[in-house]
Amino acid sequence: MAYAKAMLDTHPDPPGGGSGVDPAAIARCAEACAECAQLSTMCADACLGEPTALEMRSCIRSDLDCADVCAATARVVARQTAFDTAVVRTLVAACAEICGASAEECERHAAHHAHCRICGEATRRCQQACEQLMLALA
Amino acid sequence: MAYAKAMLDTHPDPPGGGSGVDPAAIARCAEACAECAQLSTMCADACLGEPTALEMRSCIRSDLDCADVCAATARVVARQTAFDTAVVRTLVAACAEICGASAEECERHAAHHAHCRICGEATRRCQQACEQLMLALA
Amino acid sequence: MAYAKAMLDTHPDPPGGGSGVDPAAIARCAEACAECAQLSTMCADACLGEPTALEMRSCIRSDLDCADVCAATARVVARQTAFDTAVVRTLVAACAEICGASAEECERHAAHHAHCRICGEATRRCQQACEQLMLALA
Amino acid sequence: MAYAKAMLDTHPDPPGGGSGVDPAAIARCAEACAECAQLSTMCADACLGEPTALEMRSCIRSDLDCADVCAATARVVARQTAFDTAVVRTLVAACAEICGASAEECERHAAHHAHCRICGEATRRCQQACEQLMLALA
Repeated sequence: MAYAKAMLDTHPDPPGGGSGVDPAAIARCAEACAECAQLSTMCADACLGEPTALEMRSCIRSDLDCADVCAATARVVARQTAFDTAVVRTLVAACAEICGASAEECERHAAHHAHCRICGEATRRCQQACEQLMLALA
Repeated sequence: MAYAKAMLDTHPDPPGGGSGVDPAAIARCAEACAECAQLSTMCADACLGEPTALEMRSCIRSDLDCADVCAATARVVARQTAFDTAVVRTLVAACAEICGASAEECERHAAHHAHCRICGEATRRCQQACEQLMLALA
Repeated sequence: MAYAKAMLDTHPDPPGGGSGVDPAAIARCAEACAECAQLSTMCADACLGEPTALEMRSCIRSDLDCADVCAATARVVARQTAFDTAVVRTLVAACAEICGASAEECERHAAHHAHCRICGEATRRCQQACEQLMLALA
Repeated sequence: MAYAKAMLDTHPDPPGGGSGVDPAAIARCAEACAECAQLSTMCADACLGEPTALEMRSCIRSDLDCADVCAATARVVARQTAFDTAVVRTLVAACAEICGASAEECERHAAHHAHCRICGEATRRCQQACEQLMLALA
């Protein structure tokens, strides 16, 4: 994914609404959230398909939550019109925490399930991208 | 809306995952978020249709953000399997803040646009339902 | 739920974009989709919590699909600005079919699980509201 | 984006639920829908920020619809557990049509707005990926 940065450059307003935040941090966060949302959806589905699905309930649930929160964050971060620093910072901070909890759960199963390993790695990348944008907006 | 409470009663696990939180607080928050998500979507669309849409950009943007965050929160709060108190609390706290910002924006236009008045009221109810669930989970 | 009709009345444009469709049919469809999306999310979660979750995989999957499609349809139907009859009709027709498949799955488990009974009923109501709006837009 | 194919390979079930459909067609459709959803969200926001936003209402509306439908389709297509060929085919067919309408709208503004050009191209790619999966599932 490298489309978000190209798209941000076409916006009539400066990215981050004049807050001076690095546009690349916004683009990285938007793309990491979109990718994490999709991979968490796929990991929940793969966990549900495992013969041991009953033992994967916590992972399925945290994957579903992570997918929903990351999908919302991907959209909010992508918007530059009437940018509200406080709102974006509140959301990326919450998203970072929720990604951290979901990544921890996936990592428990990473040795046994490749989908959990791949998803856990993407969720950690998303957590870091959210934390970096949060700091940039502080 | 009164369906969420009836549905929670059918779940095989106790609502709130044994945290002892009042199921009614969970149901109210889930329903308030679902209603706010839908009304914010409609308010963004009505603002866009106004002859003065250019002056309503901040309201359209905060409505769209609020709709996305409330839709995600409605889903997360509705799930009782493998309930993670910390994750739910983090999200409802963020949702309450974002609802507060969006309600404030709608209230600025409430005297001129009935959609902003109705949406602002629903968004305040959602903010309060999130705050009450946040306190119940503390 | 009765908020959608009140909100439609505040829109600067006529509901249905001058297509002459009954606003009540639009409001009913938007509310039925929003309710079905929320109940399907809750039913998927309740199925996942059952001791027999392994046998409920098809139901969990169709609930998750139904929730996603109904959530999107609730938003599209709710928008009246630049109303495109063909787009709305295509989507509510697809939503009706997908609701039909999900309701059928829930009905298989209705005798054993109250969440499947409640969700199946709401999904049938949503299917009908989509079919009625589809016919009204034909 | 090339993550969806890698993730599909880790699923305990064969992609497409034994329908024999090429997994690459599923992966391409899931990724194209996820990318189109994100770019349409960004295009709606960029259109709203233009000095000529009032003339971009149809484009904003079709972008928002396209984002919602593509986000739902990205999730449904990504799920392989209890794969229901009829449901997936119905949804990708609807998504292809709605992408077609949205791309047409973006293309009208492509000469004046780079965001509409980029978004229109991604939406056409998504339309084609949906059409190819629809044919593969026929």
